[in-house]
Amino acid sequence: MHASTDSRIHATGAIAVIFAAQHSGQDAQGYAVAASAMDALAAQQPGYLGMDHAGGADGFGITVSYWADDASAKAWRDNPEHRAAREAGRDRWYTHYTIHVARIERGYAWP
Amino acid sequence: MHASTDSRIHATGAIAVIFAAQHSGQDAQGYAVAASAMDALAAQQPGYLGMDHAGGADGFGITVSYWADDASAKAWRDNPEHRAAREAGRDRWYTHYTIHVARIERGYAWP
Repeated sequence: MHASTDSRIHATGAIAVIFAAQHSGQDAQGYAVAASAMDALAAQQPGYLGMDHAGGADGFGITVSYWADDASAKAWRDNPEHRAAREAGRDRWYTHYTIHVARIERGYAWP
Repeated sequence: MHASTDSRIHATGAIAVIFAAQHSGQDAQGYAVAASAMDALAAQQPGYLGMDHAGGADGFGITVSYWADDASAKAWRDNPEHRAAREAGRDRWYTHYTIHVARIERGYAWP
């Protein structure tokens, strides 16, 4: 969930999981370690297509992960290590977050 | 398209437009003026539900705008001032961007 960009257009019917979080600023090192570990673990999951992340000094970040289908997005949600990381996030790293799961209808890239 | 956060959960069936852009760093002042103007103009459009934006020093930013239905998302895409801003973006502000239009299937907020 660190600086990473994915310039691909994902197919119609793929799933985008939009995670928007206000960071607390607490335990920044622990967050950084876990975020890198989660990035690597997500990339190993069946159906993983890619991830975009942006975040700034104001502590607000958006991560969009892309999945081949809803089953793979749900399997990642239910992954035990990912669950544990989310619990740590609620305990320490985030003050608020929203998640929207959405099905891609169309995409464009420039150039 | 500036620092703005929307902590609401949007309804199933609403549309999320995910705009992920690498900024060129050129004409930063012109970008800032246009981004504020586009934020204000978007908020006046029928069907506008809200917007999240995150971006950092690396120049990569993600803006997610939420719309009541696909018709309102398309009307914003076709808005003449918005079109002109996108043209300026391709000319000066961005080196690359992707747009995914996706239909929300479920959402969660914490806390």
